[in-house]
Amino acid sequence: MPVTVHFHFDFGSPYGYIAAEKIGPLGARLGCDVVWKPFLIGAAMKAMGSAPMMEVPLKGAYAKRDFERSARFHGVPYRAPSRFPIGTVAAQRAFYWLWDRDPVLAKRYGLAVFRAYFVDDSDIGDAATVIRLAAEQGADAGALAAALGDAAVKDRLKTEVDAALAAGVFGSPTFAVGDELFWGVDRLDQLERWIVGGGF
Amino acid sequence: MPVTVHFHFDFGSPYGYIAAEKIGPLGARLGCDVVWKPFLIGAAMKAMGSAPMMEVPLKGAYAKRDFERSARFHGVPYRAPSRFPIGTVAAQRAFYWLWDRDPVLAKRYGLAVFRAYFVDDSDIGDAATVIRLAAEQGADAGALAAALGDAAVKDRLKTEVDAALAAGVFGSPTFAVGDELFWGVDRLDQLERWIVGGGF
Repeated sequence: MPVTVHFHFDFGSPYGYIAAEKIGPLGARLGCDVVWKPFLIGAAMKAMGSAPMMEVPLKGAYAKRDFERSARFHGVPYRAPSRFPIGTVAAQRAFYWLWDRDPVLAKRYGLAVFRAYFVDDSDIGDAATVIRLAAEQGADAGALAAALGDAAVKDRLKTEVDAALAAGVFGSPTFAVGDELFWGVDRLDQLERWIVGGGF
Repeated sequence: MPVTVHFHFDFGSPYGYIAAEKIGPLGARLGCDVVWKPFLIGAAMKAMGSAPMMEVPLKGAYAKRDFERSARFHGVPYRAPSRFPIGTVAAQRAFYWLWDRDPVLAKRYGLAVFRAYFVDDSDIGDAATVIRLAAEQGADAGALAAALGDAAVKDRLKTEVDAALAAGVFGSPTFAVGDELFWGVDRLDQLERWIVGGGF
């Protein structure tokens, strides 16, 4: 049985973006199934009573520099978005709607959203941008536009966010193998050793 | 000219302990001077308006597990201390007093303090423990005991803490090469590439 890795992220997270570029090749190399699981980092911060990272003295200034350096370290193109942070509810609702129809297309859409935000400086908070990016991957733009207003589509994201927090997820990216959580793109090395060794 | 790495840490920090075990060999391998710079993580948290990590919902439970897994990953023995967090003022005042007399002895003392706390579960918050650990490395116990009450020794630590925060340091461990900061034992890979390449 291949190992399943749950990849929890928020489309607004720079480290989530770097992780999205790395997890596909890692999963292919190790023969894992990777299940993408967007959640809302804002909901986690509320549960933690934490302030947004960029507003924290000292940490905010460091993070800005570390995003750029970490992207270079991992060989991933990165441009600091002019809109930051950004609302990701529409992009993440669309993700689950696509995933339920075609997971392969949904992952392509997911990478396209990340790149639109962190390379092309697009406004991924705008539903029109989200629908365009999905359509470029082959999704039905009209059906998606209609779906984004559905209560069931809204509930789907809410249920996923609640489940992620209940599983102990609080940061983006977090990788889960069974109950074992790995928080941060800087835990890819531990994740790989865990998968290869069946724990360590 | 060899590169100088400033190693900022708090003796109460599990990731600082792992870093202390790794930075000596890394420095020797790359031909760097490593300057140990204890600071008070509590002062940084106050400046940031942050709650102690272990008290943060979700993050606290994750951190407990990540400390142990990260120690195994890095091949460093680790036992969760029964007293956690712990006051490190005496241990850090003693460090600078020792450093000003014999940096090589001070680093041996520093490793001994970390191991006493994170392997032997010793009460490093107790000045008597601190003096014993220093004496075991060859320090003059009587002179150190007297020094721990000196205003100049207290001021030395305070000045170092203020300087660390002014330089942007907020977490343990943080490595600095000139103005470039690397926060976390999980940034040792970026630190190494930075030193080898003169930046990246």
